[in-house]
Amino acid sequence: MSKRILVDCHTHIYTKRLVSLLRSRTVNPRIHTNSPDGSEKLAILPQEVSGGRTVGPQYWDVRNKVSFMNRHSIDISIVSLANPWLDFLDAPQAVTSAHECNADLEQYCCEATELFARAPGDSHVEAARRMKAFGIMPLAEGVDPTEIVKSLEAIASSPSLCGAILGSRGLGKGLDDPALEPVWAKAAEFGLVLFLHPHYGVGADASQPAGLWGTQDNGHVLPLALGFPFETAAATTRLILAGVFDRHPHLRLLVAHSGGALPILSSRLASCVAHDPHVCNRLHHDPRFYLGKLYYDAVAYGPEELEAVANIIGRADRYKAGATAPMAAKGAYTDKGVQRMMFGTDHPFFPPTREDGTVITDDQTETWRSVTENLEAISDVPAWSQSAKLGVFGQNAVKLFGL
Amino acid sequence: MSKRILVDCHTHIYTKRLVSLLRSRTVNPRIHTNSPDGSEKLAILPQEVSGGRTVGPQYWDVRNKVSFMNRHSIDISIVSLANPWLDFLDAPQAVTSAHECNADLEQYCCEATELFARAPGDSHVEAARRMKAFGIMPLAEGVDPTEIVKSLEAIASSPSLCGAILGSRGLGKGLDDPALEPVWAKAAEFGLVLFLHPHYGVGADASQPAGLWGTQDNGHVLPLALGFPFETAAATTRLILAGVFDRHPHLRLLVAHSGGALPILSSRLASCVAHDPHVCNRLHHDPRFYLGKLYYDAVAYGPEELEAVANIIGRADRYKAGATAPMAAKGAYTDKGVQRMMFGTDHPFFPPTREDGTVITDDQTETWRSVTENLEAISDVPAWSQSAKLGVFGQNAVKLFGL
Repeated sequence: MSKRILVDCHTHIYTKRLVSLLRSRTVNPRIHTNSPDGSEKLAILPQEVSGGRTVGPQYWDVRNKVSFMNRHSIDISIVSLANPWLDFLDAPQAVTSAHECNADLEQYCCEATELFARAPGDSHVEAARRMKAFGIMPLAEGVDPTEIVKSLEAIASSPSLCGAILGSRGLGKGLDDPALEPVWAKAAEFGLVLFLHPHYGVGADASQPAGLWGTQDNGHVLPLALGFPFETAAATTRLILAGVFDRHPHLRLLVAHSGGALPILSSRLASCVAHDPHVCNRLHHDPRFYLGKLYYDAVAYGPEELEAVANIIGRADRYKAGATAPMAAKGAYTDKGVQRMMFGTDHPFFPPTREDGTVITDDQTETWRSVTENLEAISDVPAWSQSAKLGVFGQNAVKLFGL
Repeated sequence: MSKRILVDCHTHIYTKRLVSLLRSRTVNPRIHTNSPDGSEKLAILPQEVSGGRTVGPQYWDVRNKVSFMNRHSIDISIVSLANPWLDFLDAPQAVTSAHECNADLEQYCCEATELFARAPGDSHVEAARRMKAFGIMPLAEGVDPTEIVKSLEAIASSPSLCGAILGSRGLGKGLDDPALEPVWAKAAEFGLVLFLHPHYGVGADASQPAGLWGTQDNGHVLPLALGFPFETAAATTRLILAGVFDRHPHLRLLVAHSGGALPILSSRLASCVAHDPHVCNRLHHDPRFYLGKLYYDAVAYGPEELEAVANIIGRADRYKAGATAPMAAKGAYTDKGVQRMMFGTDHPFFPPTREDGTVITDDQTETWRSVTENLEAISDVPAWSQSAKLGVFGQNAVKLFGL
């Protein structure tokens, strides 16, 4: 039995320059201190009502991430910028900022290496391998796609960067925008993993008089629990329907939150496509086939959810054009699907809270429930073999990212 | 082995009076003949761009439904009005129309009985038991909740009606509106099944510059495949978070499309609630517990989806307040969850189409793919026993609805 290696493929930071930029702004997204207690708040959405979420060093200080990793026995983290990314900037600013962010992310990984070298915790992984990062592309309205391709070239040549995170807006028209074709082509050529992550959710829905989330006080629960995975499902589906994976079969897309709402809706999607020949005829395969081409974090918080996602990924070949394979026996899909799933924490979001709901910010000794839940969810999937679980804990990520 | 009985709990009609009403209207929702080929189209949403879907006798003629049932060996159907329901009417009209619709639905079932008596097909179920219906409540802005309670009393006393279908808007503020408390109480008291069905979807999202569905031509795929189950998930979650199932533990809610996006997101929901003590403290149980109190149609089009839903329903007791049960062994949750699932077709939607995408309306001899897919999905769940499958095919519905 090989030793467990724990890789966190879904863990966020803000770079210090990005924090300064957000502090300097007077409209959202911005970091402000207008809260009653004077703490810094990050307000992301234009219509943010709560004033935003409390932020502190855990969002940008590398020492905090290193402490979190050692405390939870995380061997390797692949950090990524948290939202907002760069689509609130004008095109030249977005290009400049992407360049700066990628340099800062590389620097962040170097600083982490020094810290790990001094205090390795109980990890058997060498210091220089323990902190990697997704870079960022200048995806904002008006940016020339050649600038985005250039950012991918910069990422590919940056030793600690092994992909790029992106939201669902693209250049303003979403990810099914034909203008993004050179981006998919370049990412596939370089083997860079693109990490698709929700950003804006779907809550501000004009078709419901009281909005999709209504008027009852449910805190951030509905936009976070449902809005984010809805957005991810919509963006991923639009990529599939646009034929992106037909034209770029080697594109490596990692989908946040275990694919959001998409896996459980994929046969419904296939049925809707089958009843719309205009869409159906332009795709090479049944939509369910493409789910087997994607990668998924295991940030779903429950074993039944993870098992479902693995089964749905693993059955993909049944839906390849021309496939005649019958239903496989019980459990046959699991082993195949599970190879595309990988542990994540979503740190520093979902921090420990006190009884009254305030966030514990002096958290250097806390074990985070969001981490233990996602670890236990993997351990508890009844149908997964021990080696499948070791894959999800870290080996699948080691292989995908060449760690 | 008991004989298979096939019950369709998700099958729609329009009453002829409702069709006349929709034909008389000049704004959406309405039925019009402005299409190039002069066929009747039903345009439901205010912003309907495609002109609406082609409608014909299969939507209102009882002979068509009887033929469909006999052709697909469906023993019993519980028909329900399709959207739009009554929320486009003013309050007095909605009350009157609900009364008329419920009378017409009862009449529809009586007519079906006569037809079955004459031509029973191969069903062994007696004619008078084969057509049942969900009634409709006057859920529209400004309606006095006592009128809604009255409609439930009328439904309860109507021999062929065994529940009521409803969308997600309630009286305009959604289903978590405290004004609806007497409705939940009365439905629970009568044991009437409320069938929660999406209506408006979530597509018209102001937070995405190109809308959630973008600008590429994907026909109706995105709003149907994703928007509908998003809406269902949001509405069901809002009911849970509002404590409706804490106050009305005997409320019987049947959720369309296998719960839409909710089952796969339920552990994420639980995690978000756990991190928001304000919401968490007012609920009696972990949100996942409530999923075990609901009923689900099996309209998910794939065996892996159905298995996932059953597992997620079946684990609910693990999340009861104070529960200390460890993880059950592999498959232990399936048998419990599957008892709350029941076959449906969504007829007359998803009709057979020709190669060019036109709907086959002279379909009296066609086998519908949407039916065979949902039947095969049940048959193909590897983890389900034969008796569990017979339950989903019909016996669960017989028991729930007292058929």
